Amino acid sequence: MSEVIEKGKAAKLASFTMAGKTTEEKNEALGKIAEQLIKEQNRLLNENQKDIEQGKQKGLSESILDRILLTEDRIKAMADAILLLIEMNDPIGEKLETINKENGLLIEKRRVPLGVVGMIYEARPNVTIDAATLSMKTGNAVILRGSSSAAYSNQALVQCIHNALKETMIPQEAVQLIEDTSRETAKELFTLNQYLDVLIPRGGKNLIDTVVRESTVPVLETGAGNCHIYIDETADYRMAEQIVLNAKTQRPSVCNAIESLLIHEKWFAGNGRQLLYALHENHVEIFGDRVVRDVFPEAKQATEEDWSTEYLALSISIKVVSRVEEAINHINQYGTRHSEAILTENERHAALFLTNVDAAAVYHNASTRFTDGFEFGYGAEIGISTQKLHARGPMGLPALTSTKYFIYGQGQIRK
Amino acid sequence: MSEVIEKGKAAKLASFTMAGKTTEEKNEALGKIAEQLIKEQNRLLNENQKDIEQGKQKGLSESILDRILLTEDRIKAMADAILLLIEMNDPIGEKLETINKENGLLIEKRRVPLGVVGMIYEARPNVTIDAATLSMKTGNAVILRGSSSAAYSNQALVQCIHNALKETMIPQEAVQLIEDTSRETAKELFTLNQYLDVLIPRGGKNLIDTVVRESTVPVLETGAGNCHIYIDETADYRMAEQIVLNAKTQRPSVCNAIESLLIHEKWFAGNGRQLLYALHENHVEIFGDRVVRDVFPEAKQATEEDWSTEYLALSISIKVVSRVEEAINHINQYGTRHSEAILTENERHAALFLTNVDAAAVYHNASTRFTDGFEFGYGAEIGISTQKLHARGPMGLPALTSTKYFIYGQGQIRK
Repeated sequence: MSEVIEKGKAAKLASFTMAGKTTEEKNEALGKIAEQLIKEQNRLLNENQKDIEQGKQKGLSESILDRILLTEDRIKAMADAILLLIEMNDPIGEKLETINKENGLLIEKRRVPLGVVGMIYEARPNVTIDAATLSMKTGNAVILRGSSSAAYSNQALVQCIHNALKETMIPQEAVQLIEDTSRETAKELFTLNQYLDVLIPRGGKNLIDTVVRESTVPVLETGAGNCHIYIDETADYRMAEQIVLNAKTQRPSVCNAIESLLIHEKWFAGNGRQLLYALHENHVEIFGDRVVRDVFPEAKQATEEDWSTEYLALSISIKVVSRVEEAINHINQYGTRHSEAILTENERHAALFLTNVDAAAVYHNASTRFTDGFEFGYGAEIGISTQKLHARGPMGLPALTSTKYFIYGQGQIRK
Repeated sequence: MSEVIEKGKAAKLASFTMAGKTTEEKNEALGKIAEQLIKEQNRLLNENQKDIEQGKQKGLSESILDRILLTEDRIKAMADAILLLIEMNDPIGEKLETINKENGLLIEKRRVPLGVVGMIYEARPNVTIDAATLSMKTGNAVILRGSSSAAYSNQALVQCIHNALKETMIPQEAVQLIEDTSRETAKELFTLNQYLDVLIPRGGKNLIDTVVRESTVPVLETGAGNCHIYIDETADYRMAEQIVLNAKTQRPSVCNAIESLLIHEKWFAGNGRQLLYALHENHVEIFGDRVVRDVFPEAKQATEEDWSTEYLALSISIKVVSRVEEAINHINQYGTRHSEAILTENERHAALFLTNVDAAAVYHNASTRFTDGFEFGYGAEIGISTQKLHARGPMGLPALTSTKYFIYGQGQIRK
């Protein structure tokens, strides 16, 4: 039996046990894990150093090495995040619906765990702790498949979790790491429908695309953000400048930052030049259409590719449009269904844009940067879903749950 | 451009229009379709006859020919179902969550259409009308891919829908049929992620398995039902006999009928023989383990395969167990996560069973035959989901919806 099948089978069995665990039992285990991370800190740092040294030998970039690196502060941050998770409401058991039938049947729809969560991820060892603890809080078992570049760290972290669980009611098989990080084990997980209830890829676009393409297990997809702001004819200049600068420059590397600006031609005629210079002063590189370059010759020519590009950097593509409908169509063609905003004083245009733009979050007169589980008050975030089934937008703990109908009778039969 | 890509593209465009349609506009169109079905009845029956004749030439079985057949009554039933659908609540626009942020942002989570629904199905032409009208009510565009055995009927039905839509606010591209019924067009749909938001297979296990295995588009899976009843030590005899006979014999061909019976050994010692004879008198063929056959020699020996078999007929497999936990483990091993029941007067055993059995619907002291959208009061049913993501159990109209965050500001930016 392969490692993946063996651990999958054990995880499935553990998931049935997990479904019956109380909030107290799960929180107690989470508390022990937080403690154990601090207790074993030195061992964790030592094992992490092996990954770092190996990474240096392999010539990994500084930014990847930084993602792999554990420090005292980062371990403390992991433990603190677990303490916050303990405080959060346990979604399991929540009654979502109650149906009283005339024949006396009581039907209750309640939240239950998904079962076994598969997590495939790159580099960052903190995902190991994140995935394990979020799964535990929601009563799931989890199978972790990290990358070879963090293999020592991931093994040490899972060992630490197992050490903590020894003193608790939670079985160790509820958290398992696939130690063989070859491409074959990833492929095995893609078709492990017998034991996995969901597969979540965390990492770059290539990883996500591969999982979506090859997995027969249902996938929770957290996608890219090619986000737009459309400045309508009646937008207030000061508000527009503040929001555009915030959405583009406050943290350009994140998925809810904007990559593209669409501007109504009349607004552009009056305010375009001033906004372009404001972006320029804030070190934003501009790719514009002909109208933009006529006013601001420093702008580079935007190509078809620019409209689809998620720069994740201080760059922006800008197009001048003649109607709100043109902006909507452009976004529906090139956007990635993440976060899209209209700035306007025209309520009819706002309603048209919000209804017809196809995205997880649509904004009227606010920055797209608010699309975030913490900002929405959901606490811990699994990621931001750009798919439409199951969960869309920032995913809190309920995204890791399913539902189940509990039906109570006194001998009822169907007529 | 292939037919699939061309129609996919048109459906995507139509879906944006559909998202903005009011309940009144959608209901008006549904009403016109119901009328048009009756108006064009003769043409529909004539076209259907071509499929029937072709089917006879191909040597299709009587039961398949019956599934393809349209009659005046069946057309009337389709029209009546549409009138009921008009009366149902439109889920689109429903506010699921309202978040008022301290900074003045108003965040509303609302139900929206999925976008474009792909439906792949076999034989039955009524699925054409079902899928088209359920998708329309929920503001979706739909692409239909029926089988060659009902090609004339499906084309006539979609033509009838298009004729009805001419007089309405709903674009004809909201309902499109793939006329090429070769295997290639099904394959194209499996990977049409650019235009399809979900793919729903309706038909036999082979079709569903193929779609799950090959589709990169998210799939809504409606699965098989290998359902069990477990009779615990303390079950009331009269209740048990009534429920078992109802769940097995009232309509054996449906997915919520039971296929397998697990009986506690003590209950079996006192009541087993009587129950076996009751099943026998009701023409149920029994596949039993050794204990069953000792008491009832007419029973056939149950093999490993029987525990996994969905007979969909008057046959049942029966196993005697020594503990409730053994029953739970058996069901979690062999069940298909559909509907599972325990009959017992022991509340602790009932709670253990309901929590630990992994299924869409779990019952205490009632027949499994109630797992049904109409019985639950959901009205029109898309099918019964045995998957855990997005929708589980009987799926009403909300299963064809997604959600979207509408965010209203007055210039808010992220700090």
